[in-house]
Amino acid sequence: MKRTNGGITAPKGFMASGIHAGIKASPLLDLALLVSDVEGPIAGVFTKNQIPAAPVILDRLHLKKQYGRAIIINSGNANACTGAHGLKDAEEMAKLVAIRLDISTTSVFVGSTGVIGPRLPMPAIRKGIPSLMQRLRKSGHRDAARAIMTTDTTVKELAIQTRIGKQLVTIGGMAKGSGMIHPDMATMLAYVTTDATIQPKILQVSLREAVHSSFNTISVDGETSTNDTVLCLANGMANNTMIPWHSADHKKFQHALNDVCQALAMKICQDGEGATKIVEILVHGAKTDQDAKVISKTLATSPLVKTALFGEDPNWGRFMVAIGRAGPAIQPKHVEISFDDVTMVKNGQEIIPSRERQVQRVMKKKSYAITVTVGRGKSSAKVWTTDFSYDYVKINASYRS
Amino acid sequence: MKRTNGGITAPKGFMASGIHAGIKASPLLDLALLVSDVEGPIAGVFTKNQIPAAPVILDRLHLKKQYGRAIIINSGNANACTGAHGLKDAEEMAKLVAIRLDISTTSVFVGSTGVIGPRLPMPAIRKGIPSLMQRLRKSGHRDAARAIMTTDTTVKELAIQTRIGKQLVTIGGMAKGSGMIHPDMATMLAYVTTDATIQPKILQVSLREAVHSSFNTISVDGETSTNDTVLCLANGMANNTMIPWHSADHKKFQHALNDVCQALAMKICQDGEGATKIVEILVHGAKTDQDAKVISKTLATSPLVKTALFGEDPNWGRFMVAIGRAGPAIQPKHVEISFDDVTMVKNGQEIIPSRERQVQRVMKKKSYAITVTVGRGKSSAKVWTTDFSYDYVKINASYRS
Repeated sequence: MKRTNGGITAPKGFMASGIHAGIKASPLLDLALLVSDVEGPIAGVFTKNQIPAAPVILDRLHLKKQYGRAIIINSGNANACTGAHGLKDAEEMAKLVAIRLDISTTSVFVGSTGVIGPRLPMPAIRKGIPSLMQRLRKSGHRDAARAIMTTDTTVKELAIQTRIGKQLVTIGGMAKGSGMIHPDMATMLAYVTTDATIQPKILQVSLREAVHSSFNTISVDGETSTNDTVLCLANGMANNTMIPWHSADHKKFQHALNDVCQALAMKICQDGEGATKIVEILVHGAKTDQDAKVISKTLATSPLVKTALFGEDPNWGRFMVAIGRAGPAIQPKHVEISFDDVTMVKNGQEIIPSRERQVQRVMKKKSYAITVTVGRGKSSAKVWTTDFSYDYVKINASYRS
Repeated sequence: MKRTNGGITAPKGFMASGIHAGIKASPLLDLALLVSDVEGPIAGVFTKNQIPAAPVILDRLHLKKQYGRAIIINSGNANACTGAHGLKDAEEMAKLVAIRLDISTTSVFVGSTGVIGPRLPMPAIRKGIPSLMQRLRKSGHRDAARAIMTTDTTVKELAIQTRIGKQLVTIGGMAKGSGMIHPDMATMLAYVTTDATIQPKILQVSLREAVHSSFNTISVDGETSTNDTVLCLANGMANNTMIPWHSADHKKFQHALNDVCQALAMKICQDGEGATKIVEILVHGAKTDQDAKVISKTLATSPLVKTALFGEDPNWGRFMVAIGRAGPAIQPKHVEISFDDVTMVKNGQEIIPSRERQVQRVMKKKSYAITVTVGRGKSSAKVWTTDFSYDYVKINASYRS
């Protein structure tokens, strides 16, 4: 398995484009298109929010067919909380692409991200689609990746290659997201492409597993949006033998898919709104997996923990507060807290003499791990989080202004 | 019922004092004492955090007797996560006061607030107690209220009077808290005194109810600390006839106690770390009380909602995201959101023409109400919250530095 150039167009038979259609202020790109030469299996994982945006509703419908060929995505407007009109607009976006490709509307998927509430500026989108089609090319991956950005400060894309049977298989991906990031999905969109030959059911199971070990382990601010979507389109053009269930090839494919999703998730976390740190929180010794998950999420979303990370302050009492209020049963007397390999708290108390200085050195790093043991069992969980900085407040107090 | 001067010493037979003992930097007051002329019923409500501080463990023990006479409280050190040594220190604090008053140690209650982890500087406390005793007086309420402050910027105390039978009964109170404030208690201490004659069991039930409708409805940052304590000491010196269960007098007393606790809670909320706004969030139409509570808390703790409050940005989509991710079942199509009396969202969508300007006018106020209806039933919940400002980050990134 190795990294290769390009993003979503790195696998065989994919083209992409991105333009400024007029949804965002000029000259920002705001409309992206991804097209495969041939139709292929598609898998999707969506937000658990009870108020899904129109494109999420539409994609869930289209996904029933399990096959697709194109994805159109706009930024600057989430097409969320827009009712029946919004659903019609999302359908029209798909239809306009379908007509030009001469395929069924249900083979086209739609994504939107941006402000919630207002209706999509359909005239701009209608007008933009011809030039979006015209610009479709192998080198269009970066424009597409730029066109899905909102408060992102970096373009997020990558591609890797692995051998499946005798064939070289490529997986590419792009993502957007920096605010509203939280385990179990957030305002994030991720699109993954591959030229692997694979059955839709295996693709769906593999994508769900990849999302579980990647996008679902990052947390910037605890939010879960109306629009979160991860889609994976496989066009079979690598001509590998069909990947059998639970085979060595399946494992290899899963491994590569996890790798792409984890790398994209890490790029999102690194670009967390106002983030100056990226911290891995590991919880060990919980009674159940669910308990471990709840404790790790409580730590990852605690404003007092996150401001302490920003302030590089070894104020471990704040971790104790979060561990104690999380809910799951813990053993106060067996709590341990380490910063990278420096253990600061043992048996629920600070180790004497204090290792505050060593911990402070760890906390000055841009990225490090905090390991917490709660002494109730054998379950673990992991989550990546960021700090809360002045800039987090700044970005979010003025997002629409 | 009317407000009267003074705080915890307004009821008959109470004296208080506050000094600088040397736990915090000079000249800040850091040690407070409250003493009743006679022993009386005492009630307490404590943190639900699984890692309670030493004084909480001690107070829970002493409360079994249901009677008390004095409370000693320090700020600058939470005596939390300090193990067996910490419990011994808390006991010694109680004992030193008990010896000087010639009463049982179990009649003395202890409170601590400040940094978690380090042991109490017992030499400073031992040295401070004689002058703390010496300064005990009727006019000491304000010094005591100052001595329990940490990041608080205002002194929080008040007293009210009401007639029970033929007697005038007074209830006084003081509180500290501005960070880690959240429904179900937080790093907050509140001490309430009264000269009412009342049975300990009625006092305990009444205090729990008062806490439920006051301290448990405020949220600054979603934290729940190791030290949260509300104690209510009643010395019977008003000489009213013993208050019978569920009587008109009981209702009157409950009403007055609620009033004191709500006023103290509001003072804490107004002093929320870095808060520039205080916003009442009302949730209607939930299926169950628990559902309403969860939705209101999710809104009150969402960083995206709280930064929008700070930015005075009518970005109602953030409310929709929080409502949709909260968990409890809702009807997206029936969601309504109002800012004071301006309804902005109806049937899950923005009302056209947009009322953004009117809403912006409401959001510019220092205090207002946001009402959310979720269309699933008849249950409601209410919570007070504050905004997230630059200063919240500033205060918490450098609390110990």
